[in-house]
Amino acid sequence: MHDRIRHEALHARVMSASEAAALIKDGMVVGMSGFTRAGEAMAVPLALAERAKHDPLKITLMTGASLGHDLDKILAEAKVTARRMPFQSDAGLRRAINAGEVMFIDQHLSETVEQLRRGQIPPVDVAVIEAASITSDGGIIPTTSIGNSASFAILAKQVIIEINTAQPLSFEGLHDVYIPSYFPNRMPIPVVTCDSRIGTPWIPIDPAKIAAIVITEKHDSSAAIRPPDDETRAIAGHLIRFFESEMAAGRLTRRLAPLQAGIGTIANAVLHGLIDSPFEDLRMYSEVLQDSTFDLMDAGKLSFASGSSITLSAEKNAEVMPHFDRYKPRLILRPQEISNHPEVVRRLGLIAINTALEFDIYGNVNSTHVMGTQMMNGIGGSGDFARNAMLSVFVTKSIAKGGAISSVVPMVSHVDHTEHDVDILVTEQGLADLRGLAPRERAVKIIGNCAHPDWRESLADYYRRALAFGGHTPHILEEALSWHVRLRKTGRM
Amino acid sequence: MHDRIRHEALHARVMSASEAAALIKDGMVVGMSGFTRAGEAMAVPLALAERAKHDPLKITLMTGASLGHDLDKILAEAKVTARRMPFQSDAGLRRAINAGEVMFIDQHLSETVEQLRRGQIPPVDVAVIEAASITSDGGIIPTTSIGNSASFAILAKQVIIEINTAQPLSFEGLHDVYIPSYFPNRMPIPVVTCDSRIGTPWIPIDPAKIAAIVITEKHDSSAAIRPPDDETRAIAGHLIRFFESEMAAGRLTRRLAPLQAGIGTIANAVLHGLIDSPFEDLRMYSEVLQDSTFDLMDAGKLSFASGSSITLSAEKNAEVMPHFDRYKPRLILRPQEISNHPEVVRRLGLIAINTALEFDIYGNVNSTHVMGTQMMNGIGGSGDFARNAMLSVFVTKSIAKGGAISSVVPMVSHVDHTEHDVDILVTEQGLADLRGLAPRERAVKIIGNCAHPDWRESLADYYRRALAFGGHTPHILEEALSWHVRLRKTGRM
Ligand SMILES: CC(C)(COP(=O)(O)OP(=O)(O)OC[C@H]1O[C@@H](n2cnc3c(N)ncnc32)[C@H](O)[C@@H]1OP(=O)(O)O)[C@@H](O)C(=O)NCCC(=O)NCCS
Ligand SMILES: CC(C)(COP(=O)(O)OP(=O)(O)OC[C@H]1O[C@@H](n2cnc3c(N)ncnc32)[C@H](O)[C@@H]1OP(=O)(O)O)[C@@H](O)C(=O)NCCC(=O)NCCS
Repeated sequence: MHDRIRHEALHARVMSASEAAALIKDGMVVGMSGFTRAGEAMAVPLALAERAKHDPLKITLMTGASLGHDLDKILAEAKVTARRMPFQSDAGLRRAINAGEVMFIDQHLSETVEQLRRGQIPPVDVAVIEAASITSDGGIIPTTSIGNSASFAILAKQVIIEINTAQPLSFEGLHDVYIPSYFPNRMPIPVVTCDSRIGTPWIPIDPAKIAAIVITEKHDSSAAIRPPDDETRAIAGHLIRFFESEMAAGRLTRRLAPLQAGIGTIANAVLHGLIDSPFEDLRMYSEVLQDSTFDLMDAGKLSFASGSSITLSAEKNAEVMPHFDRYKPRLILRPQEISNHPEVVRRLGLIAINTALEFDIYGNVNSTHVMGTQMMNGIGGSGDFARNAMLSVFVTKSIAKGGAISSVVPMVSHVDHTEHDVDILVTEQGLADLRGLAPRERAVKIIGNCAHPDWRESLADYYRRALAFGGHTPHILEEALSWHVRLRKTGRM
Repeated sequence: MHDRIRHEALHARVMSASEAAALIKDGMVVGMSGFTRAGEAMAVPLALAERAKHDPLKITLMTGASLGHDLDKILAEAKVTARRMPFQSDAGLRRAINAGEVMFIDQHLSETVEQLRRGQIPPVDVAVIEAASITSDGGIIPTTSIGNSASFAILAKQVIIEINTAQPLSFEGLHDVYIPSYFPNRMPIPVVTCDSRIGTPWIPIDPAKIAAIVITEKHDSSAAIRPPDDETRAIAGHLIRFFESEMAAGRLTRRLAPLQAGIGTIANAVLHGLIDSPFEDLRMYSEVLQDSTFDLMDAGKLSFASGSSITLSAEKNAEVMPHFDRYKPRLILRPQEISNHPEVVRRLGLIAINTALEFDIYGNVNSTHVMGTQMMNGIGGSGDFARNAMLSVFVTKSIAKGGAISSVVPMVSHVDHTEHDVDILVTEQGLADLRGLAPRERAVKIIGNCAHPDWRESLADYYRRALAFGGHTPHILEEALSWHVRLRKTGRM
């Protein structure tokens, strides 16, 4: 254990998970590590849920992003989670949010700690952070994610560390912890390339704040990503042909531009598609590093990847982790505030690829609300990237639920990304390049190139009739959301 | 004229406006100076409209933002404007846009030249720029705005300069022209305070590109701003009391934070309200500097203002311009790409105050589309600021058109700013502080604090019935836009 806790005095703080969990009181704000099911503290939240059975308590739970191991479900069902921010992707918690039992504050992932730092949201009482080790100065070495862990630990009154002995000590050096200076004397964030190292490999905190250390041995949950199928391969194909034409036009090179790819099956499949493309010496400046990142490295296509977490399938994890030192020189994990920072995203000129639930004929995108009301996961980092990228791409299959739903609709039932932030839309049907187009021109391209043949004529009919009402963005307000109403009533749009 | 054109060889390029306009051919992309009715070239566009009477031609017209002197109306009616970006605020052009006669590409004002530089929109053939003078090296000294003029001139194949002798030579030194370096080697933009000077006081171009110089004598159109009334004073009052409570909570100081205020009557009135407030040594980092900027300086409240243009009423103009040298040390005009740059806005930690046409019970804002379809002006810089500000405030009167319209609606008919980008909403009724709140909590605050008493119960009723459908963001999709439909059909919501 001395290589895991190199600060001698801290050994005295080792205790059980339930003893540590006792530091968390009813009504507190708790900031936990964890980002896209990677690197979450587990023992303390499980102990908390256990305790709540006989000693009910409610907390505000902040994380980096989603938690693995059903923790969000367990905490919601134990009625521990009263408020939750800034992202989640758990079916159990989702049910509680949509029932109005848990107040979910859905945020741009770059903004949560900014708001904390300014005192705009209630301060973190206790931080619970998974670590691979603690340095002799009390610096915390995170595991497979950083997320918001650094700022949570720095800003919290008390810190609980879960030392996870299942994660290798060699994670040390993978992370780059940089905290922006405070207002009003803030300086530029010095990331100028994907591989810029600007901070420390540990989270620097006063060891006196470490109130408890819990020893665990746990593996991350595996990514729940489905393999590429015909549709996702078609989406990747359209996008790669577009990149080729951009290269022919002199707007991209063989290295493309630093890539960001969102969470989920489709974005992963699109990146996969680059393995069999003419592009090379690629770089990523992204949020989650999924299987595709490592597949691209294995294929000799990807030179460097910067992210905030690593989330792998069980198979890929078994391949990568034993040889982690081979990948490490080409990886950086950063706080999500930096991986997603508008300043850096704009500076690096990213190609951002995110997934839509649905988009409308004018190019507005809904990433979060099924039928305009039911929260899926949250906006996550998609807004941080789409607004500031050099090329903002949204992908989705043109239909969902076996064809009952068209993902191209007259008007989206909820807007996460406005037409201003959407350059390229892709479905398995085709790609619409919307750059420099007015709404009426966008509509023709989107309906023609992206809609599923089963729905194309209905969309074209809506658009034609909307034109009779006139306007910069023609709509028939009586009908604009009627497809969603029909879906709710009949199970089909 | 030798003090106006200090590059000797350029005197040979002086010609009439119609000769200069002959350089503009059918189908060209023309980039003109002008931002919020300030500093537009006038003689050449008027000559173009004249020529179109017998020699029809169509162009894509890009500017900084809106033009004065009815130029947008004249060019649209002459059928010269086929495509227009990135902003306008002219009733005549608006009609043509909403009739589908002019394709309007409504953009975040920080993004237009970025897209030009990357070749993502068609290149500028001819730039037409109003200038106070030309230096001995051929550098262009702009007048009351910079907008996109610098990049238009740098990127255009040919440049036409309109030397406006009505503007004082002493404008030299007011401007700060900085062009971000190209991808992939872009460096941080070194603005770290409102008064950071990072560029040159002229637009640096190769004098060989200056194809024509036209001598004009013109005054800017006056700002069409109505004076503060009871409602706008009430809005200002709510906001100032909020700032006071933020100061009491230690989140703001007596200097507040650098202020941005949007175009229009309401934003101007809000800034006015600061004259009789406890705040002092204020700074602005904004887009347009309106009357209120100079009133605040005169009152000893404002220490520095950075913007992209100066747009004054006739009275204020008559007061300010004779003593311009008194204000000049406390002013900088920057390219709109820099005044609005996400990187700088986030770094400086702005308080951004913009105007909504309407907002909904969850805090989504519509700034552009009347009844979801009819373009008013455009999103302008509101997205650049609202997304990245430390505090994003939207203001509006709670009713419009004598009470026929509630500006607080169940669901906005068009989304420009999502709930994620909206911290504070203010009407004359009151203020809703939405920070850290979930949608259901936002609804209660917005309906209770901001809605007009005439509409409050109908909104509360909608919300109560929507709750029965459940969801993170409860809505009755059948009814969500029914208020707008009723307005269209009956003239009243
Ligand atoms: C949008 C998002 C949910 C898609 O995830 P995905 O795994 O790639 O997509 P899938 O095709 O598997 O769709 C997920 C579910 O939504 C359903 N769905 C897809 N389109 C739908 C639509 N238009 N209406 C209703 N449901 C739809 C699918 O049927 C599927 O349901 P299931 O889980 O019951 O099978 C996901 O990308 C997300 O949460 N994005 C927002 C956050 C984000 O973009 N972060 C990016 C920065 S990391
Ligand atoms: C939203 C905006 C139009 C308001 O302008 P303003 O001058 O402050 O506001 P006004 O109250 O005078 O309203 C302007 C018009 O909209 C009408 N209006 C206001 N609310 C309305 C509503 N909910 N529905 C329909 N019309 C409405 C007013 O009646 C008025 O009409 P009129 O010109 O026929 O009298 C203006 O701020 C804008 O264009 N904003 C978008 C760009 C931006 O925010 N830039 C900021 C960075 S500079």
